[in-house]
Amino acid sequence: MPGTQLTKVGPLNLCRTSTSQYPTTQNTKELQPLMANPVCETTEKKKQQPQGPERPNSHQKFKAKLMQWVSYIAGDMAAFGEWMKGQFILLQILDWVLRGAAQVMFVNNPLSGLIIFAGLILQNRWWALNGFVGTLFATISALIIGQNRGAIANGLYGYNGILVGLLMAVFSNAGDWYWWLLLPNIFMSMACPIVSSALASINSRWDLPVFTLPFNILVCLHMVATGHYNHHFPQVLFQPRTSMHNLTWSELDYPKLFRSIPVGIGQVYGCDNAWTGGIFMIALFISSPITFAHATIGSAVGMVSGLALAAPFQNIYFGLWGYNCVLACIAIGGMFYALTWQTHLLALACAFFCAYLGSAIANVMSTFGLPACTWPFCLSALTFLLITTEIKNIYKLPLAKVTYPEKNLIYFWKMKKEERIAKQRKEQEKDIASQQKKEKIIMAAMEMKARQHLDACTVDVLQEESTQNRPDRKSEATELNLTQL
Amino acid sequence: MPGTQLTKVGPLNLCRTSTSQYPTTQNTKELQPLMANPVCETTEKKKQQPQGPERPNSHQKFKAKLMQWVSYIAGDMAAFGEWMKGQFILLQILDWVLRGAAQVMFVNNPLSGLIIFAGLILQNRWWALNGFVGTLFATISALIIGQNRGAIANGLYGYNGILVGLLMAVFSNAGDWYWWLLLPNIFMSMACPIVSSALASINSRWDLPVFTLPFNILVCLHMVATGHYNHHFPQVLFQPRTSMHNLTWSELDYPKLFRSIPVGIGQVYGCDNAWTGGIFMIALFISSPITFAHATIGSAVGMVSGLALAAPFQNIYFGLWGYNCVLACIAIGGMFYALTWQTHLLALACAFFCAYLGSAIANVMSTFGLPACTWPFCLSALTFLLITTEIKNIYKLPLAKVTYPEKNLIYFWKMKKEERIAKQRKEQEKDIASQQKKEKIIMAAMEMKARQHLDACTVDVLQEESTQNRPDRKSEATELNLTQL
Amino acid sequence: MPGTQLTKVGPLNLCRTSTSQYPTTQNTKELQPLMANPVCETTEKKKQQPQGPERPNSHQKFKAKLMQWVSYIAGDMAAFGEWMKGQFILLQILDWVLRGAAQVMFVNNPLSGLIIFAGLILQNRWWALNGFVGTLFATISALIIGQNRGAIANGLYGYNGILVGLLMAVFSNAGDWYWWLLLPNIFMSMACPIVSSALASINSRWDLPVFTLPFNILVCLHMVATGHYNHHFPQVLFQPRTSMHNLTWSELDYPKLFRSIPVGIGQVYGCDNAWTGGIFMIALFISSPITFAHATIGSAVGMVSGLALAAPFQNIYFGLWGYNCVLACIAIGGMFYALTWQTHLLALACAFFCAYLGSAIANVMSTFGLPACTWPFCLSALTFLLITTEIKNIYKLPLAKVTYPEKNLIYFWKMKKEERIAKQRKEQEKDIASQQKKEKIIMAAMEMKARQHLDACTVDVLQEESTQNRPDRKSEATELNLTQL
Repeated sequence: MPGTQLTKVGPLNLCRTSTSQYPTTQNTKELQPLMANPVCETTEKKKQQPQGPERPNSHQKFKAKLMQWVSYIAGDMAAFGEWMKGQFILLQILDWVLRGAAQVMFVNNPLSGLIIFAGLILQNRWWALNGFVGTLFATISALIIGQNRGAIANGLYGYNGILVGLLMAVFSNAGDWYWWLLLPNIFMSMACPIVSSALASINSRWDLPVFTLPFNILVCLHMVATGHYNHHFPQVLFQPRTSMHNLTWSELDYPKLFRSIPVGIGQVYGCDNAWTGGIFMIALFISSPITFAHATIGSAVGMVSGLALAAPFQNIYFGLWGYNCVLACIAIGGMFYALTWQTHLLALACAFFCAYLGSAIANVMSTFGLPACTWPFCLSALTFLLITTEIKNIYKLPLAKVTYPEKNLIYFWKMKKEERIAKQRKEQEKDIASQQKKEKIIMAAMEMKARQHLDACTVDVLQEESTQNRPDRKSEATELNLTQL
Repeated sequence: MPGTQLTKVGPLNLCRTSTSQYPTTQNTKELQPLMANPVCETTEKKKQQPQGPERPNSHQKFKAKLMQWVSYIAGDMAAFGEWMKGQFILLQILDWVLRGAAQVMFVNNPLSGLIIFAGLILQNRWWALNGFVGTLFATISALIIGQNRGAIANGLYGYNGILVGLLMAVFSNAGDWYWWLLLPNIFMSMACPIVSSALASINSRWDLPVFTLPFNILVCLHMVATGHYNHHFPQVLFQPRTSMHNLTWSELDYPKLFRSIPVGIGQVYGCDNAWTGGIFMIALFISSPITFAHATIGSAVGMVSGLALAAPFQNIYFGLWGYNCVLACIAIGGMFYALTWQTHLLALACAFFCAYLGSAIANVMSTFGLPACTWPFCLSALTFLLITTEIKNIYKLPLAKVTYPEKNLIYFWKMKKEERIAKQRKEQEKDIASQQKKEKIIMAAMEMKARQHLDACTVDVLQEESTQNRPDRKSEATELNLTQL
Repeated sequence: MPGTQLTKVGPLNLCRTSTSQYPTTQNTKELQPLMANPVCETTEKKKQQPQGPERPNSHQKFKAKLMQWVSYIAGDMAAFGEWMKGQFILLQILDWVLRGAAQVMFVNNPLSGLIIFAGLILQNRWWALNGFVGTLFATISALIIGQNRGAIANGLYGYNGILVGLLMAVFSNAGDWYWWLLLPNIFMSMACPIVSSALASINSRWDLPVFTLPFNILVCLHMVATGHYNHHFPQVLFQPRTSMHNLTWSELDYPKLFRSIPVGIGQVYGCDNAWTGGIFMIALFISSPITFAHATIGSAVGMVSGLALAAPFQNIYFGLWGYNCVLACIAIGGMFYALTWQTHLLALACAFFCAYLGSAIANVMSTFGLPACTWPFCLSALTFLLITTEIKNIYKLPLAKVTYPEKNLIYFWKMKKEERIAKQRKEQEKDIASQQKKEKIIMAAMEMKARQHLDACTVDVLQEESTQNRPDRKSEATELNLTQL
């Protein structure tokens, strides 16, 4: 099961301070190790060095080694990406394709991508091939139409491609290994970066990502352009519900219901195999345990919503209620908002909203013989990202700063700390200023008194003594004045 | 009947100057009293004070008292709202809920809200309860997700809630007092502020309000997510028209047709009772007679459009052609545009456009088993608010300045007056400048002549007299030069 | 056939330099003459004047005359438009109406408009009348609601009107010469500028045109508001495909397939007559051969796409696959992007994408009993105009600078030239700066050497001679220092 091999590394990690903000998952312990990302580690090392010259025992040594090893494969594998830049172009493209495959789940990690491809092959080799072709051609097309190289290298042009390729194969009614399908597959994959770029021009006005909208648009376009009764590219038939279905609560199958959680995660890639879903969960966990946790929660929320809205059990078992909630929950819970308990609750609300929306969109789309795709996720996540609020703990990261939940969180903490320090400095300055003001007032008061006393003395002197002493006293008073001001 | 008790107050009002711009309603006289809002009154009083120390007779006294009394309950009851700020929070929330109930019709007035709730109770107590729950939870949710307190206090987060609550009850096929319905009702009401906030982020780019879009989205979402054949939350069945209906013009029932005007206003809240509609009209009139007039006109326009487009008479009688036009006509006629005769015509055009759109959207939505909700109003009003024009009298108020039609109008007049004054000042300055320029030119010309004359004299003198006088003359000429320049 | 009478003028034209960028049409030769627009000619004349005082022979004279004549009727007939400004208002409106008729194809040319009306009359006189009424009232309405006079004069408010008028007549099921149809026709035409203005407010944020979106919205609105079963305004019935159609490749009729190219161009105005399509092609060629070429290519691409997606042959013959691609190909190929080989390829891609989208939208719209109108063109062209790219040769013209492809191209070249010159100047300056730097370095090095030599000499002198010479040498060295720095 994912995460168990890393449980013991926990104690070493110094970055855990705020994971207690994250209350509802049972995976909190497993989450901690991966929170040590490179940025954090370096600051940590600096702190450790002066602490002690004592030799660590072999247990600590082992832990430290494991930590470093983890930092190489977890997160976004930035070191690997950097190393890749000097390699042969085909190898680079492979890296981009693998990152693209994982980016569907907001994971920017080639290892996760590799594991996901393994899961896909386990499910169906023809689908996996189509997915690979889709990712590849989407990436190539992005290169051709001159898109930003950094975005391509992070797989941001590939993830729509893999979904287009996969789902076109999944929804094709022509059976597996119908090679002609690769033609529209390539065409649609190559259209992905175009639609992505166009949508980004619109969404960037609100600093929003395009999510899987290009995939939704293009797969729906292909399916509705051809349809069930097409000679070349027939599609699976979707039909609107026109009568009451049977619903006996005693028939509810609990093992199947439980299995619907990994299946729901698998359905993000159109896979109904629970093992494939489990493999995807491992892929998520490797890169980011927060993502993994929210994916699981999202899938569970979807399942519960399905029961609440009296959906046919078959649909729930099949994971159709889960996959949108999985994506929505990941997006809101830590990916585009910094993870606090407020945004965690927001992610839950978004998952419920997404499930509702999923049912609605599925019904609407079936009128046109279409599946819901990931429209519900896109629309609900965009809605929840557009919220403006006066609560400071609901912090939407600038799109350029989004990496993965753990790093986002560290960025948020850093920012908050800097803010606090700046505030403190300001207050200190204010304090000093007010102190100085106070002192001035006191000084002025004292001077006033001194002068009054002096004047009184002068008067006394004048009355008592002769007049030759006066000018001297006056100059003294002036001196006092000058020094005290 | 609304307005009659206020008719006699008219003569006192000094702010009537421009009501003649408002030609098509029969209510012009009734409209005048309420135009005196606090802002206007104060300027009025200042003018009156110096005018005369003569004692007003008892009739005038009575009028003045009535005026003040009217100013407390009409408009947006700003004084009451201000007073409410110091009260207990539950009482405040009640105020916000009542304002929210009235804000559906753009009326920010708790008294109107109370009357509207009375109308709803007259129609159906279960619906009224659902409406109340909806408003309440929408307001609470807005507080929770940290929305602007001022907007909440004006009921801007409640009006979608009341519509969601009401219409979910209206369109439920499970019958009245099906208590489970409160669950989705509360969920959807609480989603209202989220959707409102998200839409506001988009619409604010064009300085547009969100209207009832959140309600439309959420009710459609609930209805299509569950549908007619749902076990838990079955919906009323809407089906597309698939054959010619009977249409015999001789069967047209004129009393029913006339009654469709209040019914159309009632249908804004989903009520088909003419008395309820009448009560709503009173609620409108209390706050703003301009709103009341446009509501009536809008409902009539909708009815006429229904006849023109050969709609089934039953739909027209039922007010389905009216309610969108009511809202659209109010929105354009004085609420978001300052009321001039141009915007009044625009409001009429918008009402006709809205009726057309209403028929179109109803047909499209019926394909999905959905009612038209207030989509036609939202889309047509947004379209008409997006127009850019070179006509100065079509003035769209900045969203932050929108209050109620009468106050908007005063704001517009004030702005226009200031503009005129600024223009006059500029012209005067220009006049002065040109006057000065003119004078300079005249002076220069005169000087020229004087010099010529002088030179001529000099020549004469030279010819006639001896040379010793010359230098003196010259210096004189120079002197003249210097003084005249 | 279009263009043949102009073929011989080619050699005279000096502006042909870059037409080799335009490889796929067979019309390249015919295209050249019209590239000489007024701007180009003047620069040309200036060049020619100093070249030679030799008398041109009669052949050259004839060519020059023809050139000038062409410049009067080709392009946007700016000279004619300028002359029109002083004419009677009704004559001006006629000019605007004719330009509006041609603007459907992005052609701002009253002569083309006249030819297009001729084509429409050839097709169906009732349709032509409706088209004329639509254009006229749309233009008048734009004047009433205070739209920009320049835009009206360029026909930018008329083209949606002609389409609304025409297509409402085409899709009416009440038969020709059903005079009542003029009522909704006038209403919808007058709504055109309102919807145009509203959409422009949105699209202008991305510097995008509104294309034929107002027409699409309004015609769909009218059709779905009335529907097939309406008593007053019945519409033609569109129904979704619910079974497999027959498709025998041997039945493919090649002459009909070839004829589908002009028919596709004719279908932009809803005309299925191949001759009408041919007349439209002439109208296009007169104003802009690039537009003409892209229209032809677009229609061909649509036809090919139809075959690829297994569309019923009847639809392909009828031009239903062509008209959207025609418009999309014109818009991307030279109209809103400057024509380079990259944008030409982009235009081809857009045409294919548009054909796909056309099929999809037609299927979706048929669910509501609607035709596809030009939604596919609008959506695909907008998508392709929203792309952001790092390729410099894909240059989107600012909306205010868009005229017609040839002029756009000249604008692009000019801009590029200026950029190149600016760059060269910068480089020269950099060269000079680096030269100066180099010189300084060399000087410094020389000085260093000289000083070393001097020091060495001094040492020698010191060793060889007595000490009294030293200070002098030192001062000399300092002198050298000062002069060389």
